[in-house]
Amino acid sequence: MIKVTVFNEFIHENEDERTKAVYPDGIHMTIKRFLDSDEIIVRTVTEYNEKLELIPNCGITEELLEDTDVLIWWGHAGHKNVPDEVVEMCHKHILQGMGAIFLHSAHYSKLFKKLMGTNCSLKWRDGEKERLWNIKPSHPIMKDVPDYIDLPQEEMYGEQFTIPDPDELLMIGTYSSHEVFRSACLWQRVNGKVFYFQPGHEAYPTYYMPEIRNIISNAVRYLKPTYRVSELKCEHYFSEKL
Amino acid sequence: MIKVTVFNEFIHENEDERTKAVYPDGIHMTIKRFLDSDEIIVRTVTEYNEKLELIPNCGITEELLEDTDVLIWWGHAGHKNVPDEVVEMCHKHILQGMGAIFLHSAHYSKLFKKLMGTNCSLKWRDGEKERLWNIKPSHPIMKDVPDYIDLPQEEMYGEQFTIPDPDELLMIGTYSSHEVFRSACLWQRVNGKVFYFQPGHEAYPTYYMPEIRNIISNAVRYLKPTYRVSELKCEHYFSEKL
Amino acid sequence: MIKVTVFNEFIHENEDERTKAVYPDGIHMTIKRFLDSDEIIVRTVTEYNEKLELIPNCGITEELLEDTDVLIWWGHAGHKNVPDEVVEMCHKHILQGMGAIFLHSAHYSKLFKKLMGTNCSLKWRDGEKERLWNIKPSHPIMKDVPDYIDLPQEEMYGEQFTIPDPDELLMIGTYSSHEVFRSACLWQRVNGKVFYFQPGHEAYPTYYMPEIRNIISNAVRYLKPTYRVSELKCEHYFSEKL
Amino acid sequence: MIKVTVFNEFIHENEDERTKAVYPDGIHMTIKRFLDSDEIIVRTVTEYNEKLELIPNCGITEELLEDTDVLIWWGHAGHKNVPDEVVEMCHKHILQGMGAIFLHSAHYSKLFKKLMGTNCSLKWRDGEKERLWNIKPSHPIMKDVPDYIDLPQEEMYGEQFTIPDPDELLMIGTYSSHEVFRSACLWQRVNGKVFYFQPGHEAYPTYYMPEIRNIISNAVRYLKPTYRVSELKCEHYFSEKL
Repeated sequence: MIKVTVFNEFIHENEDERTKAVYPDGIHMTIKRFLDSDEIIVRTVTEYNEKLELIPNCGITEELLEDTDVLIWWGHAGHKNVPDEVVEMCHKHILQGMGAIFLHSAHYSKLFKKLMGTNCSLKWRDGEKERLWNIKPSHPIMKDVPDYIDLPQEEMYGEQFTIPDPDELLMIGTYSSHEVFRSACLWQRVNGKVFYFQPGHEAYPTYYMPEIRNIISNAVRYLKPTYRVSELKCEHYFSEKL
Repeated sequence: MIKVTVFNEFIHENEDERTKAVYPDGIHMTIKRFLDSDEIIVRTVTEYNEKLELIPNCGITEELLEDTDVLIWWGHAGHKNVPDEVVEMCHKHILQGMGAIFLHSAHYSKLFKKLMGTNCSLKWRDGEKERLWNIKPSHPIMKDVPDYIDLPQEEMYGEQFTIPDPDELLMIGTYSSHEVFRSACLWQRVNGKVFYFQPGHEAYPTYYMPEIRNIISNAVRYLKPTYRVSELKCEHYFSEKL
Repeated sequence: MIKVTVFNEFIHENEDERTKAVYPDGIHMTIKRFLDSDEIIVRTVTEYNEKLELIPNCGITEELLEDTDVLIWWGHAGHKNVPDEVVEMCHKHILQGMGAIFLHSAHYSKLFKKLMGTNCSLKWRDGEKERLWNIKPSHPIMKDVPDYIDLPQEEMYGEQFTIPDPDELLMIGTYSSHEVFRSACLWQRVNGKVFYFQPGHEAYPTYYMPEIRNIISNAVRYLKPTYRVSELKCEHYFSEKL
Repeated sequence: MIKVTVFNEFIHENEDERTKAVYPDGIHMTIKRFLDSDEIIVRTVTEYNEKLELIPNCGITEELLEDTDVLIWWGHAGHKNVPDEVVEMCHKHILQGMGAIFLHSAHYSKLFKKLMGTNCSLKWRDGEKERLWNIKPSHPIMKDVPDYIDLPQEEMYGEQFTIPDPDELLMIGTYSSHEVFRSACLWQRVNGKVFYFQPGHEAYPTYYMPEIRNIISNAVRYLKPTYRVSELKCEHYFSEKL
């Protein structure tokens, strides 16, 4: 059993009619529904409640993270109100071994930027068709992914994406308007794996597409920790005589 | 002074009217003319002469390679007639420190495949407009390269490009037909740097474009060896007592 | 069930008393015995028979490779007599998805050099104690590997190891004589994973050590293909209109 | 002319007799003296003054950083008192293009950890002999560096060093006590290059060794920005019709 926690800021769904129409009870619930299975069990946390009141520490606790294999993060308008202590807690658990998936505008979350060590900026514009190319078909996250996937409507995210070079680049996206983007990227951060996946603007029904669901499900399986420690620190150390 | 040797198979220019119209005295001569300068001196070698007779060892000798800082390679229809000894000689000099630039269809040359360790296949189709995106503007090879460069006509080269992941990915190309390609890639092979650059189908005037010339010139400067050895071999070795 | 084929040149065991004493029926049989299990089934092939006569194509066929998940390679004195066609066949299957483990002096095999694209030289000397450090404990190949493993006697292999930078560096070895070596390295070559592991001089009982067996067993599991194709080639390609 | 700013916390030299004996006017002044030349001009800043009073913002300003090509950082006991605003300012300038060299215990500085995205812990112990191996002799930072350099006395820093895999690994250190360490590592962070170099415990005269000075001087030349921007941010972007 893989234990997933989905974080969603839950802002647009509560104030924007267009988003509410697509994700009536929140992006987190849509993701939960397609992941929940015999193999994966999903909990959700949000930064805001349905009245747009901040939830203390976004509902994230040490106990929750200790019991989480893979954290999925969706955020956009609420990045700056995520408390630094929450970011520190999540960061620590990722380095210790927890997996983390950052979706779409989560590229600009405090947590993703902290993991990358850079500012993670990009070019953007609303409303283009996107074609996502599979450039590493042998990777487990690309299981059952065809040569390319077309998204009827997606926000354009374009290069230069100011990330460190990914350890593995799995997909490159392009658009009807001919920009390009490194759309599916993997990094190792000590014991934890970090996956960035670009699709998922809040106003488009991207997370209902079977091809997108397949990739996120594959990623959950791939990021599940096989090794996790309870502490990482400098150690006064003696090895035996060789 | 940087000493460049340009290899061109010189087949299409001698048998195809369309190519002859674009490169009347060969792609190698066009490249030579734009590179020759106070800083760079260019020699050329070809696999075939103007009567389409094979030139012994493509005119490549140990002495030439020892006196070459950067080798530029253009080939397509003649890959298999390049003698294995020529490939071995060039490979050895690259590992020892010589730089090497592979243009367009040289992805399928014996020498490039030998350096990569893979088969270097890709998808292709004639005649699309291409947009080349600069994704690493700080790299010396990207000096004075804008966000993107448009090529009015180019052969489509699409992913999956079965290369080892490049050490540095500098440009991603896309096309009017919406394929994508890793179009400018760098690898280190022991002491030598290897650069693959996708533009340059023989029937289009790509090597007359100032933006393309700038990138090839930058690459020549970047690949010039600063360290080169005369032999690489296993060594029976003793270090001093620590 | 994981299907492993172990290749051993089988020379030293047939002509050197010291080696025969350690591996009486060949390194391949020792490896077979510790790998064979409910999960792994092992076949062996050799370059020479017990009378030191060359075996045609080392007993390697297309059918065998098609039915092999992971190829393990041990060679030293017989590299040059491995037929080029055997190298081509194995290379092709690795790019298509088969895993490959190269042990010790196999760094200088034709097949490993072909996969790397470099000459793979190193410094060497007989008979030192070695300490192998685990620098990536979260990697599946490092499962149950402690901080370090001591080998009572091993051939010294020292840097510069003229390989392309590994995609992942898992272990660094050092010696009583204070050289260092990248001792456990991983590369992706199209669909296949390639693992180099330095221990295993023919005259020392390295492949009887439980810690070394654990690493090779882990590698077999990790290199098992999850994606494999029957051909890799350039393709005249049309994608749909976006 | 390359403009270098050396940051030193300047604590041990003011309170520890052993350190004062080695670096009477501070590590920063020793580094300044060997770098200052026709080619390099050095300014210094410190976290503390000679009375161990904190200096506001460590003497670091926007103007200073704008006028700095390469920042060198030495810190140990004072990491936590470096103001977060100073860290933010330096981080921003590095992403924009400024080079940064982190020496020895600076692995645990706020700025280095922010650039890495990990916690950067390691094993340590006082007082071993160290041997530093050059594993990439063709790299410009390894210019004129022999096979290995011996340090008569150095603090042991051992793996696992919890950094992201370096883009380039230039040296591996080992010790009389047989630990190993990735001692010279390079990363790109957007437009800026980051170099970590392990030698330089405050109580040993490491920065007087010509071999160590050569490497730091080489690094200064290599990290000098050739491309630097004044801002990095997400951009609402339109490209032309292809």
